[in-house]
Amino acid sequence: MCRHKEACTTDSSILTALRESRPRVHSITNYVTAEACANLLHACGALPIMADAPEEAAEITAQSRALNLNLGTLNPARAEAMRAAGSAANRLGIPVVLDPVGAGATAFRRQTAAVLLREIRFAAVKGNASELRYLAGAHAMCCGADAADADAGSLKNAEIAAALAKQTGAVIMMTGETDLVTDGKQLFRVHNGHPMMTRITGSGCMLSALTAAYLAVRPEQPLQACLTALCAMGLAGEAAAKRMTAADGNMMFRNALIDAVFRMTEQDLKEGARYEADG
Amino acid sequence: MCRHKEACTTDSSILTALRESRPRVHSITNYVTAEACANLLHACGALPIMADAPEEAAEITAQSRALNLNLGTLNPARAEAMRAAGSAANRLGIPVVLDPVGAGATAFRRQTAAVLLREIRFAAVKGNASELRYLAGAHAMCCGADAADADAGSLKNAEIAAALAKQTGAVIMMTGETDLVTDGKQLFRVHNGHPMMTRITGSGCMLSALTAAYLAVRPEQPLQACLTALCAMGLAGEAAAKRMTAADGNMMFRNALIDAVFRMTEQDLKEGARYEADG
Amino acid sequence: MCRHKEACTTDSSILTALRESRPRVHSITNYVTAEACANLLHACGALPIMADAPEEAAEITAQSRALNLNLGTLNPARAEAMRAAGSAANRLGIPVVLDPVGAGATAFRRQTAAVLLREIRFAAVKGNASELRYLAGAHAMCCGADAADADAGSLKNAEIAAALAKQTGAVIMMTGETDLVTDGKQLFRVHNGHPMMTRITGSGCMLSALTAAYLAVRPEQPLQACLTALCAMGLAGEAAAKRMTAADGNMMFRNALIDAVFRMTEQDLKEGARYEADG
Repeated sequence: MCRHKEACTTDSSILTALRESRPRVHSITNYVTAEACANLLHACGALPIMADAPEEAAEITAQSRALNLNLGTLNPARAEAMRAAGSAANRLGIPVVLDPVGAGATAFRRQTAAVLLREIRFAAVKGNASELRYLAGAHAMCCGADAADADAGSLKNAEIAAALAKQTGAVIMMTGETDLVTDGKQLFRVHNGHPMMTRITGSGCMLSALTAAYLAVRPEQPLQACLTALCAMGLAGEAAAKRMTAADGNMMFRNALIDAVFRMTEQDLKEGARYEADG
Repeated sequence: MCRHKEACTTDSSILTALRESRPRVHSITNYVTAEACANLLHACGALPIMADAPEEAAEITAQSRALNLNLGTLNPARAEAMRAAGSAANRLGIPVVLDPVGAGATAFRRQTAAVLLREIRFAAVKGNASELRYLAGAHAMCCGADAADADAGSLKNAEIAAALAKQTGAVIMMTGETDLVTDGKQLFRVHNGHPMMTRITGSGCMLSALTAAYLAVRPEQPLQACLTALCAMGLAGEAAAKRMTAADGNMMFRNALIDAVFRMTEQDLKEGARYEADG
Repeated sequence: MCRHKEACTTDSSILTALRESRPRVHSITNYVTAEACANLLHACGALPIMADAPEEAAEITAQSRALNLNLGTLNPARAEAMRAAGSAANRLGIPVVLDPVGAGATAFRRQTAAVLLREIRFAAVKGNASELRYLAGAHAMCCGADAADADAGSLKNAEIAAALAKQTGAVIMMTGETDLVTDGKQLFRVHNGHPMMTRITGSGCMLSALTAAYLAVRPEQPLQACLTALCAMGLAGEAAAKRMTAADGNMMFRNALIDAVFRMTEQDLKEGARYEADG
């Protein structure tokens, strides 16, 4: 359900396109949530490949239809693989997603994020307020993968997202209680989601993976693809929470979240998406 | 259930042997499916160890009863560990399984697979048509861990599997809609399995791990052990699919698949195995 | 329920303290159980960070309230990160937990464990009899992560745990059929737990992570925190086993175990803790 007619841009046909074309999505990502992300990609219809060695990353990317770069459990070899894969993707016109996990938290991640942003053209960058604030050059009070409370003021967040979109040419997805997504011209606020998503590891990583899958089948409509990914992931969180019994906890929620992506229909997404255009 | 009397060679007593002797199985494997494989090994009664540093791999192998080498998320250190562990296993008479994930997809995997096949004597090699076609020296159209459609012609696959068995001395397990298993003399087609197995990450990795566990207790009967592993894994997939409700997706299936291995009885396997000898 | 009045030292208020303060816990750990540990940390109320590169480990530790070092899938870079992170933690007064997975099994782990014990002051060390026996300088018959039967004599184990506590200044948690915990002065035997905990990967790793989380909110009461962690983890295992149906196996148990930590109340812990003071 969309609140503003002019802004009805989720594209639920992405769900069918993915299930029919089963695009390969290359993720260079942390080992903590790699399995969850791979199963999430299977759930939405994509085929995951997670190769992360500099020796082969670019070749794997060339055989894929989207590339997902995630800075969790970063190490020098994986950073090198990201540079090689990202360059290959840019050369071949393959959309690239950046998930700057913990950007700003350490010098190593700051430097790596800076190198990646300088060398690679991203279709989408997804992070929390702290991570994106750092990327936008603001003085982040960022500390790891969780947004510091100090960064929650939503008006300012929208400005930061828009600035970063203009700086990078990427669609910016800023997650939080209300998610923001913008290409620097249009900005949407997404109201889907559930607090349980903050009680598992990998909600953010899975969103980035899902975004890469959506971009694989809609490379020309990055804003729509990103908006749709945010709504779909949030909606899956809502569906998963509904299945929880009094004995279930965050593991059951994690499993049900991926299963909800597996089961989601175009109709579910059309009826369940809750977002609004800014202004 | 076996269709040809002369070919009734699944050995369901392996299930009890594993639960009684709890052999240690050393896996050098990718980080995406490592936890699933470790839990699968626990499910069947084995004790998993996943050490992957060249500094200690051979020592760990020497304390184990089977070795499982998997090329997913390959990197140079892990490749080095595989060489050291494989050599130790050969020296000590410990059976070794190779899962050449994505063999042929990149120069790095081609070179690593070639080195491993040259230096190590494998008890079993498990792959899809593309991966094994590459290993057999055919011109693979392989791309990552999923079989390209072009490789599906089953007659030719049987020839490739048989050729590779003769080349390597290993039992060859070729997975696909119908699985093939051959030692170069006898060939079986296994009809167990479920399409949901292609919708999770790690079905193939778990099969390789299970095969290593079966070989740990039946090192002298590799063809029987491999045939039994294929039937048992496929049967577990069938059992898992039966447990799925309308809300469940691939995560529930993945969990139920491992649980089905945990619960499988000799009787289940005897009644449920569906395979036939070729010819 | 406590059997000896004088020894009633579990502190169930830790559960609420964690849920209210949500401390960041830094784990440098193996990739097999990293996701399970991260979700376990979320389950108890903590925020996991798993950064393992020497380039940033100390900086991440400095932003955390506890540090958890786990020797599974050890490699030289991770060992280096542990040294840097451990030193930073000691400098800053942040409690450090050591899980010496497979200590004694290989020269590489022996050397790494020795270096860590020499350089870092641990608040708690958790292992099975073989691992701790090795650390205490006894001739371990240790082989990987599972206790050899030969090490099960419980009287001797208590002596070893006490000696190691005195040597290191750490609280020692020795897991087995009955768990022991001692600071070298007092020793408790914990009777919580369930045999299914030995049929999954990561029971021990999750206990170490939980201990780190408890120490994050009770850095001044390490013996109480460790005793409480042992009781809580065992109690979660009991609760998980109660939820299993005839079709469920070790994956369902693993999920239910983490969910039980998520759902555990102070009342559950007060009523369910089963332990006794030695002597």
